[in-house]
Amino acid sequence: MKEEELIGLAGKYFSPGLRAGELSQGIGDDCAVVRFDGRNDLVITCDTLCEGTHFLKGTPSEKVARKLLAVNLSDVAAMGGEPWLAVLSFAAPRGIPDKYARAFFAALGKEAEKFGLAIVGGDCVASKTLTLTLTLLGKVRRGRALLRSGARENDMVFVTGRLGGTLKSGRHLSFEPRLAEARWLAKNFRPSAMMDLSDGLLEDGGKLARASSLTMDLRGGLVPRAEGCGLREALTGGEDFELLLTVPAENFSERKRTLFQKKFGLELSLVGAMIPRGGADLLLDGKKPAWRGYAHFGV
Amino acid sequence: MKEEELIGLAGKYFSPGLRAGELSQGIGDDCAVVRFDGRNDLVITCDTLCEGTHFLKGTPSEKVARKLLAVNLSDVAAMGGEPWLAVLSFAAPRGIPDKYARAFFAALGKEAEKFGLAIVGGDCVASKTLTLTLTLLGKVRRGRALLRSGARENDMVFVTGRLGGTLKSGRHLSFEPRLAEARWLAKNFRPSAMMDLSDGLLEDGGKLARASSLTMDLRGGLVPRAEGCGLREALTGGEDFELLLTVPAENFSERKRTLFQKKFGLELSLVGAMIPRGGADLLLDGKKPAWRGYAHFGV
Repeated sequence: MKEEELIGLAGKYFSPGLRAGELSQGIGDDCAVVRFDGRNDLVITCDTLCEGTHFLKGTPSEKVARKLLAVNLSDVAAMGGEPWLAVLSFAAPRGIPDKYARAFFAALGKEAEKFGLAIVGGDCVASKTLTLTLTLLGKVRRGRALLRSGARENDMVFVTGRLGGTLKSGRHLSFEPRLAEARWLAKNFRPSAMMDLSDGLLEDGGKLARASSLTMDLRGGLVPRAEGCGLREALTGGEDFELLLTVPAENFSERKRTLFQKKFGLELSLVGAMIPRGGADLLLDGKKPAWRGYAHFGV
Repeated sequence: MKEEELIGLAGKYFSPGLRAGELSQGIGDDCAVVRFDGRNDLVITCDTLCEGTHFLKGTPSEKVARKLLAVNLSDVAAMGGEPWLAVLSFAAPRGIPDKYARAFFAALGKEAEKFGLAIVGGDCVASKTLTLTLTLLGKVRRGRALLRSGARENDMVFVTGRLGGTLKSGRHLSFEPRLAEARWLAKNFRPSAMMDLSDGLLEDGGKLARASSLTMDLRGGLVPRAEGCGLREALTGGEDFELLLTVPAENFSERKRTLFQKKFGLELSLVGAMIPRGGADLLLDGKKPAWRGYAHFGV
């Protein structure tokens, strides 16, 4: 079973059960969005890292802690939100060295503090495989969460940074979640849709297009590639944790792009456009791509 | 390292990072408690079930789903709260049978609906061991969350139901979270402290006493034992998921106890009293008990 099929099951079996108007985005986006107080919506995300899947046995626990936090913060960033609080599930083998556990907790606390994030509770259990789950709550101004489903025909498609090679370079362990960048983009470009890139642009672009009932039309030559990466690797490598956003042409200006790039020292690249829905979620240089994206689950 | 040492690390390294007054209970209770809107506080809990630790390989996935939900609901109940919404982390081996996954999602959705609980998102990842984490958010009237730390000298100590033998009888998979019971008790007995029993009365009673800076003075002969259980098993078996509460004597009446027992078909037993802090967290018939509680983690 593929990850998307599992998410499909969740969508099928988990009925909302909330009062009408309370849930504005359920399963299928980077975060769920729920009405909070008069001013804000609550965004909620949950990401798990498993030894052997998301990091190799022997990875220093500081790096694991950092990645656990960053993947969750990246989801909150993608909604245009600000992190608020989190709970941790720490499932570890009984014989885990004290030193390893201690370093993990210390690093997670220190990193969380940098982002003004409070870790307020959780669970510690014994498990055969080290499995870490962080659930993160964030806030976003009421009605302002940036969903995957908001893209419109003719919107421009942008990505931040350079894609590909994150496993090889170790960047999947050390990337910076694009929180400040996302807030700046939300404010200045008013994107119609935004998400973070975890499964590769090919896979994630398709998801955004499907959610918006459109097709994403990508130009291979425009895709910003990390050093030493071919196009295929840049499009399918996964774990980029850059932002993918669609922007109505009237909200874009070269001046603002230059401003962004200077302010954050980060490229913002036009890679395509949203077009009316055709036979595919995503086209690469006018054709349905032969490559498949990165799958965290299943084959 | 023991579970309590890990929780100690969390307490040490996870600084609150919230505005003063926003967090009213952090690490160390059944739920964290955070200011929500004008009327309510938010209670947050997170529990993980691992194959091999909390259920055996081959346990029907409906039963696993039911237990996952129930252990989390039990934590919300213990705060006097009402469940609101949840996110799920589903970490499973790549080869998990479709049928098993499907039955899990269907059962979790169905059970959640019974409690008016919305499952709004989550994560699906590949893992060597089936590891399921549910994070649950609930609401409780502002300032009314029942903490472990509220017990006072001379308070009466009660437990619901009968303790022990839950692994043998399978009750650890099929127990009913005491949500309605907890709300009734909160309203009618105004307990000074409450928690759910997951690690056995000996262990959990000690935790409540420590949090309240008192000693719990238990009478072994008063402890309600499940059929076929000796006192030791009743006190240390773990996974009872009954309620442990302390009640100021002036809030108690036999009439109310009879009402409770009739309404819910559930025993409410006086098992001891809170006394000034002595050399031990908990005394059993006046002595420091030789037995140890159930440890989900470590030895």
